[in-house]
Amino acid sequence: MNGRLVTLEGGEGAGKSTVLAAVRERLEHHGIDVDVTREPGGTAFGEAVRALVLDPARHGICAESELLLMFAARAQLVRERIQPALAAGRWVLSDRYTDASYAYQGGGRGQPLERIAELERWAAPVAPDLTLLLDLPVEQGLARAGTRGEADRIEREGGDFFERVRAAYRARAAAEPRRFRVIDASRAVEEVRAAAIAEIDRYVAAAREGA
Amino acid sequence: MNGRLVTLEGGEGAGKSTVLAAVRERLEHHGIDVDVTREPGGTAFGEAVRALVLDPARHGICAESELLLMFAARAQLVRERIQPALAAGRWVLSDRYTDASYAYQGGGRGQPLERIAELERWAAPVAPDLTLLLDLPVEQGLARAGTRGEADRIEREGGDFFERVRAAYRARAAAEPRRFRVIDASRAVEEVRAAAIAEIDRYVAAAREGA
Repeated sequence: MNGRLVTLEGGEGAGKSTVLAAVRERLEHHGIDVDVTREPGGTAFGEAVRALVLDPARHGICAESELLLMFAARAQLVRERIQPALAAGRWVLSDRYTDASYAYQGGGRGQPLERIAELERWAAPVAPDLTLLLDLPVEQGLARAGTRGEADRIEREGGDFFERVRAAYRARAAAEPRRFRVIDASRAVEEVRAAAIAEIDRYVAAAREGA
Repeated sequence: MNGRLVTLEGGEGAGKSTVLAAVRERLEHHGIDVDVTREPGGTAFGEAVRALVLDPARHGICAESELLLMFAARAQLVRERIQPALAAGRWVLSDRYTDASYAYQGGGRGQPLERIAELERWAAPVAPDLTLLLDLPVEQGLARAGTRGEADRIEREGGDFFERVRAAYRARAAAEPRRFRVIDASRAVEEVRAAAIAEIDRYVAAAREGA
């Protein structure tokens, strides 16, 4: 079985960390070698970019710079970790990937989608094989996220921003139904976790059949 | 008289710092308000990007990431400093600008020129009015630069890299002869300085005549 790139996407308070751990465990349970990474970050260089782009003190970063930084971290992640892992037959599970730029820098910040697609073409030319989108109403997600620690620069945006992020994520999922699995994350975390595991079970079974 | 963007370009050991100071003084001597900046950098955000991209310890940054970082810093510089200064009628003098990406990330690293042009179109949509290119043989420049302090990550490249940088700079100058003034920087620094001042005097006189 070839390596696959599985990505996990979702807005604030969607339960992404819990689901990420569950998906990782489930893949390992199926005997799959999985490299876990996150965006922005996943490499020493990318984590330095992450610290820069998410620093709450850096208000005033223009939307263009934010988009370019996200792809700078992503280009390195693709070349340093994703491509070598896939070439070695391992799976990669990433906490966010290019869909997040369409959602946050595209939907949220208004950067044109063609601009993002053009960057994707040369900076991050590896498409995910499977994307789990944890979807829930913005208000509910923000209420959950608000109970956590200090928010980063992007998490400090207002509700309108996150409504645009959610709409962009849902539009991506609607446009690519074969790749996306939209999981209703408004439910109790245990149900969300179970739904993600069921999707992984189905996907691994299909992958093993060579589908 | 409207504001103008004047950029200074050149390889290692070309005497850019000396010429930068001389050009600044000469513009002020002509009664022109001038904002001096540098690339990568020029803003708090851009200087943080500079520290990241030039850090000698960060070997292994891919060419795509380097290009994206340079434009991330540049996009912020354009919006935070260059556009406001020009709108207020001030001149901006920048120690390197977009031509440096064509030379270093294009010529040096082999990133396609159309890719750089596309980034320039939306991330840095302000073209220089006048560009002074300090040109000298690579070997001579490296010999001069070698007498200075610790080299940054890009300065540590080999002679072939800088030959490609120089060729790319010269190709840019040949393609845009109205904007570029190529100054022979193989001469003694005082002659290079005088040549740059003479170019500034001619340019300011023409600008005052509304040319």
